[in-house]
Amino acid sequence: MARDPWIIRTYAGFGDAEQTNARFRDNLSRGQKGLSVAFDLPTQNGYDSDDPLAAGEVGGTGVAVGHLGDMERLFEGIDIGSINTSMTINATAPWLLALYVALADRRGVSRDRLRGTTQNDILKEFVGRGTHIFAPEPSLRLQTEVLSFASREIPNWNGMNACGYHYMESGCTPAEEVGFAIGNAVLVLDRLRETLDPEQFATVVHRLSFFINSGIELVPEIAKVRAYAKLWPEICFEEYGVEDVRWRAGCQVRSLTLTEQQPEVNIVRIAYEALPVTLSASARVRALQLPGFREALSLPDQGEQTLALRTQQVLMHETGIAKWGDIFEGSHVVEGETSRVMQEARGIVQRMRELGFEQSMRWISERLTAGLVEAQGRLTSGEEIRVGVNAFVDPVGVARPSAVSEEGGGREEAVARQLEGLRRWRADRDAVAVSEAREALLRAARSDGGIMAASIALAEAGGTTGEWTKTLEDAFGGRFQAPLGSDVQGARSLDVPKAPRRIRFFLAKSGLDGHVNAVKLLAYACRESGMEVIYSGLQQTPAAIAAAAIQEDADVIGISSLSGAHLHLAAEVQRELASRGAQDIPVLMGGIIPAGDEAALRALGIAAIFTPKDGDVGAIVQRIIDVAESGRSTSSG
Amino acid sequence: MARDPWIIRTYAGFGDAEQTNARFRDNLSRGQKGLSVAFDLPTQNGYDSDDPLAAGEVGGTGVAVGHLGDMERLFEGIDIGSINTSMTINATAPWLLALYVALADRRGVSRDRLRGTTQNDILKEFVGRGTHIFAPEPSLRLQTEVLSFASREIPNWNGMNACGYHYMESGCTPAEEVGFAIGNAVLVLDRLRETLDPEQFATVVHRLSFFINSGIELVPEIAKVRAYAKLWPEICFEEYGVEDVRWRAGCQVRSLTLTEQQPEVNIVRIAYEALPVTLSASARVRALQLPGFREALSLPDQGEQTLALRTQQVLMHETGIAKWGDIFEGSHVVEGETSRVMQEARGIVQRMRELGFEQSMRWISERLTAGLVEAQGRLTSGEEIRVGVNAFVDPVGVARPSAVSEEGGGREEAVARQLEGLRRWRADRDAVAVSEAREALLRAARSDGGIMAASIALAEAGGTTGEWTKTLEDAFGGRFQAPLGSDVQGARSLDVPKAPRRIRFFLAKSGLDGHVNAVKLLAYACRESGMEVIYSGLQQTPAAIAAAAIQEDADVIGISSLSGAHLHLAAEVQRELASRGAQDIPVLMGGIIPAGDEAALRALGIAAIFTPKDGDVGAIVQRIIDVAESGRSTSSG
Repeated sequence: MARDPWIIRTYAGFGDAEQTNARFRDNLSRGQKGLSVAFDLPTQNGYDSDDPLAAGEVGGTGVAVGHLGDMERLFEGIDIGSINTSMTINATAPWLLALYVALADRRGVSRDRLRGTTQNDILKEFVGRGTHIFAPEPSLRLQTEVLSFASREIPNWNGMNACGYHYMESGCTPAEEVGFAIGNAVLVLDRLRETLDPEQFATVVHRLSFFINSGIELVPEIAKVRAYAKLWPEICFEEYGVEDVRWRAGCQVRSLTLTEQQPEVNIVRIAYEALPVTLSASARVRALQLPGFREALSLPDQGEQTLALRTQQVLMHETGIAKWGDIFEGSHVVEGETSRVMQEARGIVQRMRELGFEQSMRWISERLTAGLVEAQGRLTSGEEIRVGVNAFVDPVGVARPSAVSEEGGGREEAVARQLEGLRRWRADRDAVAVSEAREALLRAARSDGGIMAASIALAEAGGTTGEWTKTLEDAFGGRFQAPLGSDVQGARSLDVPKAPRRIRFFLAKSGLDGHVNAVKLLAYACRESGMEVIYSGLQQTPAAIAAAAIQEDADVIGISSLSGAHLHLAAEVQRELASRGAQDIPVLMGGIIPAGDEAALRALGIAAIFTPKDGDVGAIVQRIIDVAESGRSTSSG
Repeated sequence: MARDPWIIRTYAGFGDAEQTNARFRDNLSRGQKGLSVAFDLPTQNGYDSDDPLAAGEVGGTGVAVGHLGDMERLFEGIDIGSINTSMTINATAPWLLALYVALADRRGVSRDRLRGTTQNDILKEFVGRGTHIFAPEPSLRLQTEVLSFASREIPNWNGMNACGYHYMESGCTPAEEVGFAIGNAVLVLDRLRETLDPEQFATVVHRLSFFINSGIELVPEIAKVRAYAKLWPEICFEEYGVEDVRWRAGCQVRSLTLTEQQPEVNIVRIAYEALPVTLSASARVRALQLPGFREALSLPDQGEQTLALRTQQVLMHETGIAKWGDIFEGSHVVEGETSRVMQEARGIVQRMRELGFEQSMRWISERLTAGLVEAQGRLTSGEEIRVGVNAFVDPVGVARPSAVSEEGGGREEAVARQLEGLRRWRADRDAVAVSEAREALLRAARSDGGIMAASIALAEAGGTTGEWTKTLEDAFGGRFQAPLGSDVQGARSLDVPKAPRRIRFFLAKSGLDGHVNAVKLLAYACRESGMEVIYSGLQQTPAAIAAAAIQEDADVIGISSLSGAHLHLAAEVQRELASRGAQDIPVLMGGIIPAGDEAALRALGIAAIFTPKDGDVGAIVQRIIDVAESGRSTSSG
């Protein structure tokens, strides 16, 4: 059989290393060629599993990896010298890569046999995904250190996946995705060029890969992929004089189009969204991962994962698309749209260079808000049809209930195993060696470079994810809060009810999840309705939320939770408010909240609950107004 | 909202008119714009519901329509002056159309408001689908009479859907599909031109539409549709001087690619197969119907039908493909393949004209067998991958069990209603008027024309489907048996086990179903294995099968059953064999047989049972050999 035209990946990872390892081995036995590792939010945010901020999130949306022992168990029985491993990891990318390299060293796998990718893209964390840790400047430095280390030490490793994916998930157009992603890559390369000799630099340029989105609108998405594939080599040559660069990318299809309603219809959407990135022979992604069709509801169970895999297998083996040359070469419509996208993206790259890294971040954040508002307006007005959401709403009902609860059932044990493993790991290691390695890392961070080598040494000495992060926080001045970017001018006006007075709405992100689409959109809509919106920033503790809401004289508190920790958060926030005598401030919650948990939340006194199914932002605003007003009458009555 | 770029249809019809009417009204309320009527096999084959040959098949794979009263109930509460009705009906097309026109007359709906299609394509019945009734010559005449009637009386009606669909279901290539379908249309028009004035003839040419297949191989299928759309107007101008003809077509996606294994994967296949006929703005079908994803197992339940509808709604409203010009215009690959398909199809049309109608039928039948054998060989060898069949076989398991059994539960009552309605209808009508109308129809059939007018008169007088057919049988010399065409030279050799002696294998089609793919393939494979294969022809009664098998000195009998009547057939054949003292001839059955019925069949003495899941033809041949040999040892022991 001919070589596969792309690598089929599935995004997997949950619980502890042992559980995820079993899933990996199962997937490999089902014909999968590469692994894609999802890490849990504490790991992505640089917390150990026993950090108070990690409570309720360990092993939740990915696997917890706290030290070299976890990394060993994660790849138990898997030859890391022969597989391709993609790690979705950013702020802590240097650390997770250090653990992977240390594992290879320990197993005697030559470093040059390591193949895979660290996402290592920080810009999109600031504007959409929220797992940034350090300020923009040191973040950019860590990114470039990973790249230069990879170019010297692990020559078959892609040190960075410049992400377009998350911009589109956060509201941008196809042309903006191309512009933001390539613009980001250019800003990183501009910085890197200062520190590398030309040959090393060219190697990095050649190796830099992309992680892109593929949405449901076929022609714009086809043109987008083709624009990426054409524009990137052009820019590499024009800007850096590097010739014959080939655009290489992985792809995940667009989660934002997947609906909680009629989840079976997502099987169809996902199948269509796989097309734009595979149809063009000259602009085909190298690796594709498809989500489970119930992604909007829960992590995929085994059946959903298998169906995602089968979808790719039908596309690859039955549709025959890989047997043909480029089917859009010469197409007037597609080539025309591709040129248009390229031109717009070029303008964006130019603008980002003028703005620099930190200002680009602020500018993009606002454009994304405008895009979200625009998309919401189109859905609400019916200009855009989403099947099952604003049209054709009667249910399908052919799918069995998700079996994910079985996995959920194993999670408690996985968390217990993880915490116990961490305790034992700390007890068994050479504390002095760890301390010395942390000192060395701190020195490296305070000097010009050497963070990767110091991180590998810390990994070998037995350091933990939390220790690595705290060491660098000491060097880089703590954690950074990114702006929300919701106060955007000139965006579409949403048709929302007017508030009867200047209600003060305190909008909080709690826990470690950093997705802010809904928060941005709601903040925009509430401002349009005439409210005063105060945003808390990310990772607020229940105590901090209660204190700040009282301090800000809030009429109503809204908490966004996407990571599954909503029950814990609700209970704690209510307790903290009560302990301060402010139990009369009404609290709302929104996010990924299973219907089965709503009664429990109400019992905890949560006044209203919103999920992705609540697509009518006007109705949400009205509910906030109602709750704020009834709260006032209660407290004044 | 802009006009929809195509009409979304679902193929529906089962039980009696009342049941189907309820489904129609439900589908219309879910946003469907047109209706597609499936008739049961007795109706398609010209039998009344109480004919002995109809036993077990009434309301089985479509609705039973026996007289004007049934037609009235079928469209109860539906305005036939405003909807578009597609009728999958062929040999009895003149009669069903007569009933529809008579209904319109009775309701006072002006004939010129009737919009829709009668399939009315007989060639593909002879070679693949098997619901022909009359010999080729009178069949062609009936076809042309429908067309000339439509051109005069119901100007918005498509009198014929030239079918490419069934050739591809029966084993042909995309280019052959185009050639056979257009070749057939040309043969019909050649005949029609003799009888119409030029203006009328041009009207028929403009109105002639196609019903095509859409398979999983995207590029060949895209090229196929484009070739249809380009070649048809060219031929209409070159051969008939009719200018500006637009190619118009309906489409059903390819059932042959849908698998019994892992039925959920068919959701993905169906989604992809909808693309080739909708992606090209210049070669888009007018109407598309998608099957339920469990079609290989059973009739679709409501959930499966809804998901088929949602698939089209996502394609139409979310992918945005209708907003763009032709995305393949200028494409080197697609335009190149389109030219190649056109050239090959032109050669086929030319050849069919040289051969004439009846010889074309024989030639096509053999080419289809060769195609089936080729496809089977590719699957068996692994040259072609079919997910879930010869690769990636572990189950998916996300779908609920089909709810179709509930509908099956209502079928007995529907059949009883149907039979009682027919009895009452016959009792209440004016028998003399019916008799006179039959006389008039017989005279028309024996003269040069006027069959449609006489059929409408018979419909109004209260004649039945069986009476209409018997009247024409009297005029046209009874029913015609088409050749199987399995004795094809030069086809691919299948790797099948050799029979130890010249086993005599009697292969029978019983009941009214006329699909012969499996029979052709098996006949070919058994001949290759060295057996003597005797084919019974279609619609054999249990008594006729038993008598012929004994007469032919058969070692083993194989019966194909696709219509759901297998239990009834098995019992009857065994009884007929036993009554002739031939109970020792082993009997095998193959076809659409639910796993739950296998035990009952074995209890009836059926020696082996094959379903679409048995993809290994070599294993089937081996089993036939084993059964034949064990039968001999039993009877001689």
